Amino acid sequence: MTDAPARLPRHRLRVDALTDTMTLGPGEARHLHVLRLNAGDTVRVFDGRGAEALAEIAELNEVRAVLTLGDAIEGAAETPWPLTVAVALLKADKLSDVVRAATELGAAQIQLLVTARADVREIGDQKLVRLNRVAQEAAKQSRRAVVPPVLAPVPLARFQPEGLTLVAQPGSKVRVADVVTWDAPVTIITGPEGGLTDAEVQTLVQGGAHAVTLGPRILRAETAPVALLGAIAALGL
Amino acid sequence: MTDAPARLPRHRLRVDALTDTMTLGPGEARHLHVLRLNAGDTVRVFDGRGAEALAEIAELNEVRAVLTLGDAIEGAAETPWPLTVAVALLKADKLSDVVRAATELGAAQIQLLVTARADVREIGDQKLVRLNRVAQEAAKQSRRAVVPPVLAPVPLARFQPEGLTLVAQPGSKVRVADVVTWDAPVTIITGPEGGLTDAEVQTLVQGGAHAVTLGPRILRAETAPVALLGAIAALGL
Repeated sequence: MTDAPARLPRHRLRVDALTDTMTLGPGEARHLHVLRLNAGDTVRVFDGRGAEALAEIAELNEVRAVLTLGDAIEGAAETPWPLTVAVALLKADKLSDVVRAATELGAAQIQLLVTARADVREIGDQKLVRLNRVAQEAAKQSRRAVVPPVLAPVPLARFQPEGLTLVAQPGSKVRVADVVTWDAPVTIITGPEGGLTDAEVQTLVQGGAHAVTLGPRILRAETAPVALLGAIAALGL
Repeated sequence: MTDAPARLPRHRLRVDALTDTMTLGPGEARHLHVLRLNAGDTVRVFDGRGAEALAEIAELNEVRAVLTLGDAIEGAAETPWPLTVAVALLKADKLSDVVRAATELGAAQIQLLVTARADVREIGDQKLVRLNRVAQEAAKQSRRAVVPPVLAPVPLARFQPEGLTLVAQPGSKVRVADVVTWDAPVTIITGPEGGLTDAEVQTLVQGGAHAVTLGPRILRAETAPVALLGAIAALGL
């Protein structure tokens, strides 16, 4: 008896990009024939830039092969170092939106925070369970093998950010693209409705956090983490 | 008699800070020469953090340009050039979320698109009115003076993107931070559930669009525009 995971398909094909449907030319089609593969068989596809997934051969003839994208293969959709999203407590539906987007955008874990201006200061066990379920569904939908845990809230003052830490601050001139180099874990911290207080931001910066810009506009509490994660994702990792 | 507003100067320059006298180096001086500007001409200067003003060229030679600060320009929460968010039709509540976040993140207008894979192909007048109301509320909440209109859908093939055009493509190695310089209007294009087809992306790229990365993960149709706008906002403008 063993509960070892199913073995991955042996054959790996390089493709230009992992898209829903991938059409390969006569050369690759011939290669698949030589490997005695047929429509319905599963292979691995990778783009050479870190992304890898299962793919099913949907069509195979003399001139082309059409593959349809399957689940991502573990590791491939993960950031080089763990990415922690630390977010102040918000109303339940807004927190769900943040958890969903953070999972899609590569969070390794989501730490809930109690901050000075929080109008929500605690969260019930059931709600926490529900948020973890949201993360699970989002991981599946975005074909990540890793489900980020949503961790019970801690006061911001007791939170120990790991690695390179970013906090959004209107007016900052520091750009995400200038500080995120992926030499270490990355932690992002965002506030509640009404934002973090100046004192909270100052304490974080004194502790080594980078205050980064998200432009001159006022963002809602649930938009800021998604925008910040978008900026990190846009670095290509 | 006319009550038309005075026309603003066409040329905009980014400066470190809006100070009484601003001295720019040889690169910017050459740029002003190329634009056929001379001492005595007026330009717009902005600091990337929301402040914008008129400035007069006091001195211009091979090695430097000296500008003197003029009146502040209203509408400082706006991007340097108009930012168009072109988004495929999605189910109504998801479109509302995109319109809300796009407004917060600086969109000048939101163009709805009909694309090959769209499972929503039209939108009722009432829904369009409602989306415009969402934009209005979001503009107010994010303290923008400009309300981006949400424009009735056009087929992607007939859409004429303006200026620097970005389309997200998994596997691209081009980063938002490498192509967005705000020398021209910016247009972002994102697809429906299931994404744009390869052919659609190819046509856009042949038309001059930049296919940019948002990381190796699969994003939902309503997350992609927010992430892309976050990446643009994180450039500080």
